[in-house]
Amino acid sequence: MQLGLSVSDSDVSSFTPLVVLELADDTKAEAITWLLNRIRGKQQNGGAELLVDQLLFPAQDGQKSNPNVFVVGSTLQRLLKGAEDVGLFKEFQDGTMRGFTYANRESFKDFYGDGEGFLSDAECQYIIKHELDTLRAKNEEHVPGYPKVKLYPGKSVVRRLQSKGVLVQYFPLHNKEDLKRLSFSWYKKIKLYFQPLDDIRHYFGEGLALYFGFLEYFTFALVPMALIGIPYYLFDWENYDKYYVLFAVFNLVWSTVFLEVWKRCSAMLAYGWGTLSRKKAFEEPRAGFHGALGFNPITGREEPVYPSSKRQLRIYLVSVPFVLLCLYLSFYVMMVYFDMENWAISIYNENPNVATGILLFVPSIIYAVVIEIMNLLYRYAAEFLTNWENHRLESSFQNHLVLKVLVFNFVNCFASLFYIAFVMQDMVLLRQSLATLLITSQILNQVMEAFLPYWLQRRRNKKVHKRMRRMMGDKELPLLEQVQLETEMNTYLGTFDDYLEQFLLFGYVSLFSCVYPLAAVLVVLNNITEVYSDAFKMCHVFKRPFSEPAANIGVWQLAFETMSIIAVVTNCALIGLSSQVKAYFPESETEMILIVVAIEHVLLAFKFILAFVIPDVPKHIQVKLAKLEFDSLEALKKRVKVGQSLRNTLQSALSRQED
Amino acid sequence: MQLGLSVSDSDVSSFTPLVVLELADDTKAEAITWLLNRIRGKQQNGGAELLVDQLLFPAQDGQKSNPNVFVVGSTLQRLLKGAEDVGLFKEFQDGTMRGFTYANRESFKDFYGDGEGFLSDAECQYIIKHELDTLRAKNEEHVPGYPKVKLYPGKSVVRRLQSKGVLVQYFPLHNKEDLKRLSFSWYKKIKLYFQPLDDIRHYFGEGLALYFGFLEYFTFALVPMALIGIPYYLFDWENYDKYYVLFAVFNLVWSTVFLEVWKRCSAMLAYGWGTLSRKKAFEEPRAGFHGALGFNPITGREEPVYPSSKRQLRIYLVSVPFVLLCLYLSFYVMMVYFDMENWAISIYNENPNVATGILLFVPSIIYAVVIEIMNLLYRYAAEFLTNWENHRLESSFQNHLVLKVLVFNFVNCFASLFYIAFVMQDMVLLRQSLATLLITSQILNQVMEAFLPYWLQRRRNKKVHKRMRRMMGDKELPLLEQVQLETEMNTYLGTFDDYLEQFLLFGYVSLFSCVYPLAAVLVVLNNITEVYSDAFKMCHVFKRPFSEPAANIGVWQLAFETMSIIAVVTNCALIGLSSQVKAYFPESETEMILIVVAIEHVLLAFKFILAFVIPDVPKHIQVKLAKLEFDSLEALKKRVKVGQSLRNTLQSALSRQED
Repeated sequence: MQLGLSVSDSDVSSFTPLVVLELADDTKAEAITWLLNRIRGKQQNGGAELLVDQLLFPAQDGQKSNPNVFVVGSTLQRLLKGAEDVGLFKEFQDGTMRGFTYANRESFKDFYGDGEGFLSDAECQYIIKHELDTLRAKNEEHVPGYPKVKLYPGKSVVRRLQSKGVLVQYFPLHNKEDLKRLSFSWYKKIKLYFQPLDDIRHYFGEGLALYFGFLEYFTFALVPMALIGIPYYLFDWENYDKYYVLFAVFNLVWSTVFLEVWKRCSAMLAYGWGTLSRKKAFEEPRAGFHGALGFNPITGREEPVYPSSKRQLRIYLVSVPFVLLCLYLSFYVMMVYFDMENWAISIYNENPNVATGILLFVPSIIYAVVIEIMNLLYRYAAEFLTNWENHRLESSFQNHLVLKVLVFNFVNCFASLFYIAFVMQDMVLLRQSLATLLITSQILNQVMEAFLPYWLQRRRNKKVHKRMRRMMGDKELPLLEQVQLETEMNTYLGTFDDYLEQFLLFGYVSLFSCVYPLAAVLVVLNNITEVYSDAFKMCHVFKRPFSEPAANIGVWQLAFETMSIIAVVTNCALIGLSSQVKAYFPESETEMILIVVAIEHVLLAFKFILAFVIPDVPKHIQVKLAKLEFDSLEALKKRVKVGQSLRNTLQSALSRQED
Repeated sequence: MQLGLSVSDSDVSSFTPLVVLELADDTKAEAITWLLNRIRGKQQNGGAELLVDQLLFPAQDGQKSNPNVFVVGSTLQRLLKGAEDVGLFKEFQDGTMRGFTYANRESFKDFYGDGEGFLSDAECQYIIKHELDTLRAKNEEHVPGYPKVKLYPGKSVVRRLQSKGVLVQYFPLHNKEDLKRLSFSWYKKIKLYFQPLDDIRHYFGEGLALYFGFLEYFTFALVPMALIGIPYYLFDWENYDKYYVLFAVFNLVWSTVFLEVWKRCSAMLAYGWGTLSRKKAFEEPRAGFHGALGFNPITGREEPVYPSSKRQLRIYLVSVPFVLLCLYLSFYVMMVYFDMENWAISIYNENPNVATGILLFVPSIIYAVVIEIMNLLYRYAAEFLTNWENHRLESSFQNHLVLKVLVFNFVNCFASLFYIAFVMQDMVLLRQSLATLLITSQILNQVMEAFLPYWLQRRRNKKVHKRMRRMMGDKELPLLEQVQLETEMNTYLGTFDDYLEQFLLFGYVSLFSCVYPLAAVLVVLNNITEVYSDAFKMCHVFKRPFSEPAANIGVWQLAFETMSIIAVVTNCALIGLSSQVKAYFPESETEMILIVVAIEHVLLAFKFILAFVIPDVPKHIQVKLAKLEFDSLEALKKRVKVGQSLRNTLQSALSRQED
């Protein structure tokens, strides 16, 4: 076994370290030896054929660092072969995107010499993660030294170690040079152009790049609405029904076109990044999934199985009632808010002055804060419940989590607005609540999301820096210090919360901005700072996340589309409430309602037809995809024929030899 | 060149004839020779490697038969290889459906000996059609003897000959034995069990079998509704609003569940028939497509191209205005009908007796007949226009045709009913119109569809029979006579009209049956006779059609789903019109409307969620499909590895030789 790297012999590993592996500090030596052997072992023998070294921190007065920290790297050749295993798509010589194969590597664009620089850092780290994740148990019955950490043939070793707490974490390392360059072009200067999406994708992978692409697209799409909103606010147009109806109609069209165009943009981005046509690999059970050992009906392999009926019971008997209870609670809080509101108004009416004027806003602010807290608490509960439901696949776990969270957040954030708009029919109060809700939640979000973690991180950084200085005197040990620093950074939990925030903002704008046209302006301002704070938090606050290949924004597309359908209904109802429309039908309210409902149905039908008619993938990319499929079909036909002729040749050669 | 088969030497071809090819009787001899050589030629040289023989009818007093009639057949081996080419899925030893390959033929279930009986007649004929269709020009610039019938490399020879009228028709022959057996089990006895769908599929292919499956499913699904409808009719419940609302709610749920369950049934059928997981081959341009010669961006091959902008112009400047004009005409006819209706009523009121009582029904009957005639005329116009739009693919031609026909037929058949229900709000008249429309159109349909063609066919049969007798005296020449007979039969134009009829019936039932509960009973009765008359027309009235592999009912699923959405809206509106519901809200009509609209929205949302939640493919078939995909992925991995090791072995062997 290769010896660990101690500070005394070198401060830089003999290979480029890409991924850090932290085991519990009391891990048994035999388990470590076994794991390292498996990681280093040949692929034929079921190893991962990767490079791995231990990082040894000098023992130190009082505080002892975890001795079981490892860095993993790989040879270039191994990475290129891994790129084929994970099914990476790369640009071919002829400009199309094709599945990378090691045998044809020289026919790919940007492949020079031995392929240095062909794969981005994020891709290399993704490949290493995949190779580690698919390191499977052979005939070990348990992890050496841990008779209780059971294994069975085919079980992912890393996932089992992780679920049993032996493997504390593993994460990709930042690349300081690249990070500096990326953060400079991304947010370190005030700029008038777009975000460097390709660079972001290069450094963080497709999933995150798509989020930032969506954020940018959404912000730009809001600009026309914001521009229209400003005169509305300045000239008090929102009180004139004529303009208000115009704005509602604009809203309707905008929210439909917005999402359809995004689908096409996202397809274009994903095609260029090679994720659009990439086939999904067979999905492994998620790390937390447990059950009695049985056989998977698809693979025929041994695997834990958990009866779906039991899961259904948990969902319908526990989760659904819990969600309903939370919704009830949210309604209750809303009613309390209205009582507070009435109380504040009565005080103001008794004694109208500046202090009581400010008091008018207090209930809304408190309510906005309470909503945020409730959302946060519910988020944890939802995660716990969904975990307990024991879904086999990460994707179905995510879907159930998103559904739970969305329903609650939607009701929690919008119920009061709907109540004010349609039950109380008080447009002035609606405007005021909307403004307070929007501004308060934006301020809270920015603080919770970026500044608080940043402040915590800076404190931690200083401590680590001091400790390292004390530990090693004046020696420059950048790798050790970097690993130490990044190990203690918070983990980025994925784009869920970021998308959720955008979803709620989209709701405020598309549902009610005809009543409060400044909403779009506020959202644009929020999103501009959001780009900066999100970029900053990705680069400096959180651990680097593993790249997540994604072809679209997934379940969020559906969520936004649902919201835009609700927006059509809401805007039509708001139009129906306007006094101008009512004035057209002075004698018959019934007729007015019937006409508004008819128009709403036509608009909904139109929306569905539009979504159906506009192709999700632009024509020129459809052609490229069809070309690729056609080529592979032709190649298959040819291969069969070549195989047949080869067989014939061999047979005739053999028979001649026999003669 | 092999000599044609004349009556003098034999009356049966030397192989089983499967497909008949009829060339124009003035076809030049060199073109015939060329074509036959291409059909018989080896595959390496671009031939089809099929067997083909000329059928010679004896010259005859006065009437001369077409001398250029050929029968095509094939060796078993060629058919099995063709089955691989067209990508047929067959049942494997382990019970799953897998793509058939000639190399693995013995691992498939039901493959015994040399494979006799492994492929059904319909499959063999489909394979021969595919091989003929993909017979491509090499470097011929035109068809020999026809300098004007231009060819270019890769152009399908058969399609060009067909579009230029040199090839009059080609069609599969009936198999008299099988047909007798099929028709006996299908419709020749009164039976209490289901149709023999597998046998139908065996004889006519998947497309037609799915139609009959759908027809059967629809009929059975209507039975509960019909059973509920009978007491409604008997006890006059339809006049009691309570029952009427109940029926509308039942309608709502039924129409949603009906379609969702069908999707699953259809997936199950298609899986068993091997069409569910079958990949669609690259689609060739349709026979009628024309344009300047250019390059296909996908295949890179020479092909006619037609600018899509020109097609759009034709669609939006000609087709759309034409459709709108027809819709206007249809409205105009409707208004004339209402005038007639009023006139009939006024006459009846002046002098109420039996004669004027019957007169009351006359306008409806005339209107129903006029509707049928307009539908028929419009059908031809739509076909002409869609053809003129010059679509490249058969599928997009079909989609545009279906859309045109559906919109018009929907308006033409239902506009008057909607007008009576919601503008005139006359439920008695609605019931009466519905009954007349339904009964008249059913009678007309059965006559036009089966009995008229059958009668024409019988007359023709007798004539041919007489002629053959005169021609050949007492010699028994079953093949010649059969070919002669079938050549003159009408061509079955596909399931379009059959589905259209079911679509309209579904509309009558799901939209208005709460007003006229006997509608379901009438439709059930109609469909029972429909099964018999359709089965009969397929077996005895029309030429046997080529089998059409289909995995589902295609665009019709969408059409039925759209209808079921319209049904939700209509039923809610009918509920809102009922006096019982109005009685609940005596003082405020507005409130009632708002509540009905709210309920309608909830129902629509529920419908969408239901459609989203119910998986389109049943669980056990999903598992089988996933298993297949997993296996092929694993096999691919293994093949790459085997290939690599083979290459290594060869290289080392070569280097050793060199030493």
